[in-house]
Amino acid sequence: MSLERPAAALVLGSPAARERLRQRFRSLVARGYGLERHLAGVLRDVLDHPGSLARAQLADAVLAELGMASERRAELAIGIESFHTASLLFDDLPAMDDARERRGRPCPHLVHGEAAAILAALALINQAYAMIWRVLGELPAERREHAAELVTECLGAAGILNGQAEDLHFRELAAGGVAAVERVALGKTVSLVRLALVLPAVVGGAGAAEVALLEDLARAWGLAYQGLDDCKDLLLASDEVGKSTARDELLGRPNLPAAAGWEGALALLRRHLAASASSLAQLAAQRAGWARLGALQAHLEGELGELEERATAADGVRRSA
Amino acid sequence: MSLERPAAALVLGSPAARERLRQRFRSLVARGYGLERHLAGVLRDVLDHPGSLARAQLADAVLAELGMASERRAELAIGIESFHTASLLFDDLPAMDDARERRGRPCPHLVHGEAAAILAALALINQAYAMIWRVLGELPAERREHAAELVTECLGAAGILNGQAEDLHFRELAAGGVAAVERVALGKTVSLVRLALVLPAVVGGAGAAEVALLEDLARAWGLAYQGLDDCKDLLLASDEVGKSTARDELLGRPNLPAAAGWEGALALLRRHLAASASSLAQLAAQRAGWARLGALQAHLEGELGELEERATAADGVRRSA
Repeated sequence: MSLERPAAALVLGSPAARERLRQRFRSLVARGYGLERHLAGVLRDVLDHPGSLARAQLADAVLAELGMASERRAELAIGIESFHTASLLFDDLPAMDDARERRGRPCPHLVHGEAAAILAALALINQAYAMIWRVLGELPAERREHAAELVTECLGAAGILNGQAEDLHFRELAAGGVAAVERVALGKTVSLVRLALVLPAVVGGAGAAEVALLEDLARAWGLAYQGLDDCKDLLLASDEVGKSTARDELLGRPNLPAAAGWEGALALLRRHLAASASSLAQLAAQRAGWARLGALQAHLEGELGELEERATAADGVRRSA
Repeated sequence: MSLERPAAALVLGSPAARERLRQRFRSLVARGYGLERHLAGVLRDVLDHPGSLARAQLADAVLAELGMASERRAELAIGIESFHTASLLFDDLPAMDDARERRGRPCPHLVHGEAAAILAALALINQAYAMIWRVLGELPAERREHAAELVTECLGAAGILNGQAEDLHFRELAAGGVAAVERVALGKTVSLVRLALVLPAVVGGAGAAEVALLEDLARAWGLAYQGLDDCKDLLLASDEVGKSTARDELLGRPNLPAAAGWEGALALLRRHLAASASSLAQLAAQRAGWARLGALQAHLEGELGELEERATAADGVRRSA
């Protein structure tokens, strides 16, 4: 169900490109040179279990389409992935989601301590900025400034951080309902999808029309991804997903089917995936190669299909009970 | 005693320059535009109580000496200060120092929650990178790369993060004693002093000999500052310092007088301040204006003098008891 699950892993680009991303991810932070052992432990756990590197694959595909050489592609793509990895370390902390499991393993803060998890996340963020910076530093001034603004917006108080704060304090927000649920998703989830899709487009020199379409695509995919994740939280058992589930209700967090009902949530997800299909078609009309991004569209549609089947089956069980 | 205390605040540069730094610090993160209220609360607490802005003042003084215009100076200086401010938010968390008080007020995580403190610290870091980046982006390639390496080293796993991890797990380190205490201080404290002294020198185009002397100065000042802080932790009551004290022994943290004894610690501090005085004199021989940094030297010597008096008085009390 999740982009994290190896069983349903997203595959974009060539095996060689994916292997390059995995290698770059593994060597993200230099290890073994006198690193304190709890800090080293978290870094080992995280870097040796990279997940599907979905965001890195997306960024790499965009940069490849725009003709960037593979080594610089990996630098930017893994920089972006690294922010995502750091955000998972923070999200799982007791003060946030208090999760027990991630990628089918105990959360690093449970094994190596909370402080080490925080410090490792900061080490990932430090490296991520350094990697993105190296790539941006070589750009012409105007493109560099646009890219820098995007990084600051997506990763700052106006982006993922406010989204996460609203997620944690959802019960206290003045407005509730589907609009509020999606507002939080725009902050906490769409921000990183924008970073993976739009930042590489700006860096690679895509035209303004393409950048605008990729913005639309990031929004629709991000909302669909978060909605699917919400459904999964409600529907699936923890051992199928590889992370703690049924947390949203327990913790009072925003959850799409909880706010819209199952039928409403599925209808909204269908609408988001129709919007993203339309953006993709328009992108492919601008530049045929953008069709390569269709792999993520197919991946999300597959997950929605699976979910619709499960929802129908669960409904059948409830009715016959 | 501390650089944080208003009563003994460091004063470097003109009142106008200090006011410019305070203003830039206050507007570090845009507030009031739909920010979640816990996150907004931490940012308000932190940005409205800037402390002495010692690191910003240092960086600003170095850049002024190298002829940089005041607005860009404030950008880099407050970027550096912002990392320090973020590090205090993390340090005070229950998983780290579990502090109750900072700058004479309850720690933000006690007022607004741990999650909000973490997210606010990340917002500060995000802005700090953006500000430093803007200044570095305008540099010629070689100087930019040198500066970027310094930022990554000081703020990454090889710098402050490993130092903080070793501080927290000091009891588990293989080697103990004064050497270990100072090794931890090199990571957790000297890293940020290097950022405030050496980074501006590189950015401003100081010569290689000056950069090397500023590296020596950062090391000596950083070790002296941390040693004075350790003494204060042992000697002074919390209400005099404006933050939680007597924590090191309780938490098993490295502490200079605990490792070296009072006489040993004071002798070491005198040696560090003699080394920094020598670096300063050599710097002033290269460029007369470096003498302006003497204000921090005088500040630290004053604190050492005060400490020697108190240690003597306390010794007198013990002997007469």
